[in-house]
Amino acid sequence: MGRELTKGHGTANDFVLLLDPNGDVEVSAAEVALLCDRRRGIGGDGFIRVVRTSHARIPEAPAAAEAGAEWFMDYRNGDGSIAEMCGNGVRVFVHFLAVRGLVDVDSEVSVGTRAGVKSVTRIADPLGGSAPWYRVDMGPWRFPAPIAGGADSLVTTAGIDVARPGLSVDLGNPHTVVALAGAADLAAADLTRRPQVEPVPGNGTNVEYIVIEPDHDGDPSTGRLSMRVHERGVGETQSCGTGACAAALAARYWAGDAGPSTWFVSLPGGIVRIEITDDDVALSGPAVLVADIALEQEFSRILA
Amino acid sequence: MGRELTKGHGTANDFVLLLDPNGDVEVSAAEVALLCDRRRGIGGDGFIRVVRTSHARIPEAPAAAEAGAEWFMDYRNGDGSIAEMCGNGVRVFVHFLAVRGLVDVDSEVSVGTRAGVKSVTRIADPLGGSAPWYRVDMGPWRFPAPIAGGADSLVTTAGIDVARPGLSVDLGNPHTVVALAGAADLAAADLTRRPQVEPVPGNGTNVEYIVIEPDHDGDPSTGRLSMRVHERGVGETQSCGTGACAAALAARYWAGDAGPSTWFVSLPGGIVRIEITDDDVALSGPAVLVADIALEQEFSRILA
Repeated sequence: MGRELTKGHGTANDFVLLLDPNGDVEVSAAEVALLCDRRRGIGGDGFIRVVRTSHARIPEAPAAAEAGAEWFMDYRNGDGSIAEMCGNGVRVFVHFLAVRGLVDVDSEVSVGTRAGVKSVTRIADPLGGSAPWYRVDMGPWRFPAPIAGGADSLVTTAGIDVARPGLSVDLGNPHTVVALAGAADLAAADLTRRPQVEPVPGNGTNVEYIVIEPDHDGDPSTGRLSMRVHERGVGETQSCGTGACAAALAARYWAGDAGPSTWFVSLPGGIVRIEITDDDVALSGPAVLVADIALEQEFSRILA
Repeated sequence: MGRELTKGHGTANDFVLLLDPNGDVEVSAAEVALLCDRRRGIGGDGFIRVVRTSHARIPEAPAAAEAGAEWFMDYRNGDGSIAEMCGNGVRVFVHFLAVRGLVDVDSEVSVGTRAGVKSVTRIADPLGGSAPWYRVDMGPWRFPAPIAGGADSLVTTAGIDVARPGLSVDLGNPHTVVALAGAADLAAADLTRRPQVEPVPGNGTNVEYIVIEPDHDGDPSTGRLSMRVHERGVGETQSCGTGACAAALAARYWAGDAGPSTWFVSLPGGIVRIEITDDDVALSGPAVLVADIALEQEFSRILA
């Protein structure tokens, strides 16, 4: 296990990154879990091995190489299990490569992932700040279930008195979006308990609670919403990239044909921007590198 | 703000350490809070500035210097507020100094803290492992309230059906210890909710739930117990040094005059040993350094 690690985050979704350009490093699930342990290790929602696609030794790498992706994001969840993709992680991945001088972000960067090649572009912070922002093409989306009366399910949530209608959105992973009336309802939802969705989704679902802000700042092409998310198998998180996409897609659906195609989504961890086309959705948001990490010898021995 | 930081933990109670031998560094509460933020920063339960007592510029430092403490533990909670002492933190503090070659742990080390000078000794791992262990003299203890029938309060806890008797223990900070019948009860306690203690303690209290193991391995001088803790103002934690002391003190009280004076306490974060004398209590446990941390330039700018 190499000792050169970096910690970074995108809207408080945080990662431990390992630069392994030549694919020299084998990292076991147990090692990832210890590195991502917030009290016994470094701490992170996920672990990202940054490897040249040509050296990745991952089934999806040859196709990514053919599509021109020089670098591959070998993403693991904090428990060491493999995940296909992470919208916040891929921004941090490209920012890390940019800061290290390993990619040129003046043009579009193609990133290999287990969910296919993702196109990432550095953009100006649309909120006027100085943080580096990146735009990620998240690929296709769809409403998987027949919709009746604006919903296809009922969601029961601790802290919210009655079951609320939910709208299913498929972004490669499953989401159920619930609209609430205002900030007080959003704060009242008790997401330490798993929401109950009827009919029960076969593979579970992430659940997004949103409050759509009525004021568009006079610009009908741009909407704003606030959101909290309960991630499948995890619990409440500070930020979920695909969840923010699902929230914007549901909000536009409910707004009708004249609804905004661009949405600023306020998550507990920060603000991201979602752009919707007929087929695709793009996620933009900040990326921050926090620190370089050199494991102590005594910890490396625990790890090995 | 200096850039040389270290992360370490004692029984999963974790800390960000800053070596500042000459007292050159001012760290604001906001900087500590960001460094200890688990997703936007490094992450830690607390922050420890490692400073020579002669350069500490802290009201308690002159007395500590007079008592022969070369190094001072300037401890802050993760939110940036000042705390007097931390039993798990002081082990990590001394281990850090030892690994850096700044103290000789072949003899007793005196550490300056806001709660007075603490005496720390490196010991062999009593569990037979290879982890470095340290023994900390935690100072005096007392039962502050009149005890009737083995208790002085009643504690109501989510997940536990009836209110249980509690015993108050003062270790400089307040504790209330509750004995449960077995592991199932210990697991059932819902510590996401704050326990309700009657009569209501003026300054709040930490609450320890313990299960005393009947088997002493044939050695009547050594007891064993399992424990979970709800820390005042924090919630459930993986480990609490003074809480483990309080648990052992209550267990010995309930066991009567022939009760063990040495206890192994199993916390979610690991095992510590408590030794009780008539007046004092000592906490022994492991200390681990995880990694050296060099803040990224872009993060240092956020920090400053």
